[in-house]
Amino acid sequence: MPYRAPVSELRFVLDHVVGFDRVAATDRFAEATPDMVEAILKEAGKMCEDILAPLNRAGDLNPATLENGVVRTSPGFADGFAAIAEGGWLGMSADPEHGGMGLPIALTMAVNEMMGSACLSLQLNPLMTQGQIEALEAHASPEIQKTYIPKLISGEWCGTMNLTEAQAGSDVGALRTKAEPNGDGTYAVTGQKIYISWGDNDFSENICHLVLARLPDGTEGTRGISLFMVPKRIPDENGTPGVANTLKVVSLEHKLGLHGSPTAVMQYDGATGWLVGEPHKGMAAMFTMMNNARLGVGVQGLSVAEAAMQHAIGYAMDRKQGKTPGGDGTILEHADVRRMVLGMKADTFAVRAIALDCAVALDMAKATGDAAWKARGAFLTPIAKAFGTDTGIKVAGDGIQVHGGMGFVEETGAAQYLRDVRVTAIYEGTNGIQAMDLVGRKLMDGGVAAFALIDEIEGFGNEDLRAAASHLRTLTKWMLDQDMQDRFAGAVSYLNAFARILGAYYHLKAAKADPTRAPLATYAAGRMIPEALAEMAKARTGAAELYAVSTDVIAA
Amino acid sequence: MPYRAPVSELRFVLDHVVGFDRVAATDRFAEATPDMVEAILKEAGKMCEDILAPLNRAGDLNPATLENGVVRTSPGFADGFAAIAEGGWLGMSADPEHGGMGLPIALTMAVNEMMGSACLSLQLNPLMTQGQIEALEAHASPEIQKTYIPKLISGEWCGTMNLTEAQAGSDVGALRTKAEPNGDGTYAVTGQKIYISWGDNDFSENICHLVLARLPDGTEGTRGISLFMVPKRIPDENGTPGVANTLKVVSLEHKLGLHGSPTAVMQYDGATGWLVGEPHKGMAAMFTMMNNARLGVGVQGLSVAEAAMQHAIGYAMDRKQGKTPGGDGTILEHADVRRMVLGMKADTFAVRAIALDCAVALDMAKATGDAAWKARGAFLTPIAKAFGTDTGIKVAGDGIQVHGGMGFVEETGAAQYLRDVRVTAIYEGTNGIQAMDLVGRKLMDGGVAAFALIDEIEGFGNEDLRAAASHLRTLTKWMLDQDMQDRFAGAVSYLNAFARILGAYYHLKAAKADPTRAPLATYAAGRMIPEALAEMAKARTGAAELYAVSTDVIAA
Repeated sequence: MPYRAPVSELRFVLDHVVGFDRVAATDRFAEATPDMVEAILKEAGKMCEDILAPLNRAGDLNPATLENGVVRTSPGFADGFAAIAEGGWLGMSADPEHGGMGLPIALTMAVNEMMGSACLSLQLNPLMTQGQIEALEAHASPEIQKTYIPKLISGEWCGTMNLTEAQAGSDVGALRTKAEPNGDGTYAVTGQKIYISWGDNDFSENICHLVLARLPDGTEGTRGISLFMVPKRIPDENGTPGVANTLKVVSLEHKLGLHGSPTAVMQYDGATGWLVGEPHKGMAAMFTMMNNARLGVGVQGLSVAEAAMQHAIGYAMDRKQGKTPGGDGTILEHADVRRMVLGMKADTFAVRAIALDCAVALDMAKATGDAAWKARGAFLTPIAKAFGTDTGIKVAGDGIQVHGGMGFVEETGAAQYLRDVRVTAIYEGTNGIQAMDLVGRKLMDGGVAAFALIDEIEGFGNEDLRAAASHLRTLTKWMLDQDMQDRFAGAVSYLNAFARILGAYYHLKAAKADPTRAPLATYAAGRMIPEALAEMAKARTGAAELYAVSTDVIAA
Repeated sequence: MPYRAPVSELRFVLDHVVGFDRVAATDRFAEATPDMVEAILKEAGKMCEDILAPLNRAGDLNPATLENGVVRTSPGFADGFAAIAEGGWLGMSADPEHGGMGLPIALTMAVNEMMGSACLSLQLNPLMTQGQIEALEAHASPEIQKTYIPKLISGEWCGTMNLTEAQAGSDVGALRTKAEPNGDGTYAVTGQKIYISWGDNDFSENICHLVLARLPDGTEGTRGISLFMVPKRIPDENGTPGVANTLKVVSLEHKLGLHGSPTAVMQYDGATGWLVGEPHKGMAAMFTMMNNARLGVGVQGLSVAEAAMQHAIGYAMDRKQGKTPGGDGTILEHADVRRMVLGMKADTFAVRAIALDCAVALDMAKATGDAAWKARGAFLTPIAKAFGTDTGIKVAGDGIQVHGGMGFVEETGAAQYLRDVRVTAIYEGTNGIQAMDLVGRKLMDGGVAAFALIDEIEGFGNEDLRAAASHLRTLTKWMLDQDMQDRFAGAVSYLNAFARILGAYYHLKAAKADPTRAPLATYAAGRMIPEALAEMAKARTGAAELYAVSTDVIAA
């Protein structure tokens, strides 16, 4: 069952659900005409089907390895990456000044989705590079921009992000990597970083590491952290990679999935680095990269949901077993298999709509500078990340279940989707961190962004949806009245509820635009709304109830 | 973080939640005194901690292999199995007439739980053998019983069950394996069976295959199927394994998990078999084996839930990250981690209570012959299987999440739990099949068994629980009024709802018996009841809504 790029579905969601026409109507993105969108999605989709999808299983079976300090990537990955670079998909949304296409993030996310469906472990590489380009555009000096961005866009060089250390995971502020001034404007970066996705490879001329480290006068915690560009090979005056920097890959992790993506422990031994942005403002700079990376990771969840769904539907329409009401005997005709498949389809649609709505908001914010668009994008980002990846995991699990015993056999491919996607709920900020961001930072506006979304949903006019949205409004007000610990106690449930109500809303909106979608929308809303109500009940748990169970009882 | 056998927790659930004292009060199980139970659980627990748990990772890293037709098991598994056999844990509930201990199934399940927590892939072997003993006790001739059961109990021989064929999975009736009379009372069995757990090993003197096959006069479908004992080596007149039978392992599967358990494709080429039970009544005989195997598989879900929970709690109490309200800095003090851990703990308790309540009902039915006990056991079996295994998967997933990035790294061990447990939702009848059994066969009594449970829950007197149980009663009545397709459409949600209401009930019952459990019970009920209400809303979907989404739309 080969992967088929869902070009028309992406077009439908862009055109009829998330209002992409508003993006195309701005001066900044005037090039993104319907014809252009169609051409881009078709071309990228073809590459994903023909070149990337065939690499997926090979990458799983032949993980990247470290041999004498050199990373050897999975068979075909170099060619796959070359195709991505040649297609221009690395710099789709990058500034044309440096060779990018300047296209909306919504289109980058649509293309990313397809690349991730085809081969998630390879797609993680462009995702990192895209984020680095964005961080450099926003924070780096013109010299650094000129040296690095064109090479990142062309794919000659790749980018990584180095945040985590053994003792500093979710708490980035605990990091110990140091940066000492060399006296010539550069810094000597020393420390060890872990979980560096695509920390090295054998097809890039250079690897550009964005590394969080502390200057000698940096205070403890996140406020004393600065961001540095630390290239594997130091560019000479012509920008050509020259001498090797004093950094190395110590080891690669043996992971549950994403075997094709080398996850490195990186050692920096006084490696030469260049400051990116202001001293001690590294977290803010890194957040530029991370915010879109978060949406990008949410889209990875979508990628796997779409691929696992196609794979399961292909099996369900082929496999015959028992007597069925329709009489054709395929298991898709069995009520419970159909239930699973519809659930996969409903959830995948919802995730795509949330991710693309988020992307449209980010594009509109960029094009118009409007604070409301910015707030909408910021609010939707943690939802897109957490709900997108949770859904990817859920749909991949359902895909295994649809396959029955075959789902547990690796050759089938169903299990790989689950293994690969599992990390997306963890990296770029765990889904718990996303939920805490939602009820913390993203409600700091007093709920303005949340209420604007709820207004929109209530205004849509479906009765059940309106009632649920009204509950969500009440819950949001309740959240605003709580202290942070009580919010955190219900954060994941709040996010889950919001995502499901958005999902039901987008489904019903789609059905309005295209009545053939009404049956799926009815089914989806009939699941998502009750689930949202349950999550809303759970969201009010409060911290006291959590801590009432003593650590002794937990440990018993 | 080594596994610790939850002996006192098992005692508590037996004594204060599921009323095991009633079992011990029967003549049949009079030996199962509190002292005896304590001794058994402690002894089995010690073996699990000291001997089986250390094998778990080795089994994962060194899968069983097939070399020149011979299965080589994982390092240490032979010794582990010997310890299980020597402890008498294979024949705990077997008839003393054949060398069993004649103990209640509830105790077998408690011991199985601990063995499965310690090493699931090895524990699957005794589970199969236990089921075979039971099937032979119920259906085999005295000669077969005498030849096989003592050897199965002693662990000299192992048992397997052979149902599935490539074209006959959930639809067992589609099987093509044939059995031709040899004229001497034996049969020549010919066909290929797949997914045969522990189809062979290198530590048993003999492997006893119970094989479903069709006699020449067997009609199509499940009514024409008979059950045969087909040993790997044919016992001579003294019961000593003699000549090799004409059967072989064709291949072993490469699986997502359970690597230590060889999953075989078995080929029978006119292999000599003996009829077990009546001709054409093989499905009924196999169901004896499968029913307890279903409960046993539900307990496998519990096993992994408990092990993954302990593993995650150990990590959460050790890992320090960020500032915490309590100030000790372990991640267990963070609200969202605590939420996950409490959820794992609440769910694991609920699954254990359901499984042991089911086992107690089966024991009471055996001891008293009372139809109500039998019906309770039968009703709870699919719930224990599906909810137990779904929970095992969920808790293992949460365990990964609690570990953060470490959860995706295989060395941590968190991922193995998820990989191993995933199949439990599939084998012994997929969880969808369990749910269909619940709303189909298990409601054929007009809801008597369901309503008896609901009466008990309503009678407990907690207000929220009573309201939820009342909804469940209404839903059950609704189910009884639907045709089978409409029931099937909502089957999984019905099962999910019933399990959650049972879970909340057992938690509140536990809190009544031990007030220190009240905080966890409050938390658990506060999650399970809203979730049950959502599932009840979804259970009423009906088939029409599922089939309203056309196959064309699904395939698009």
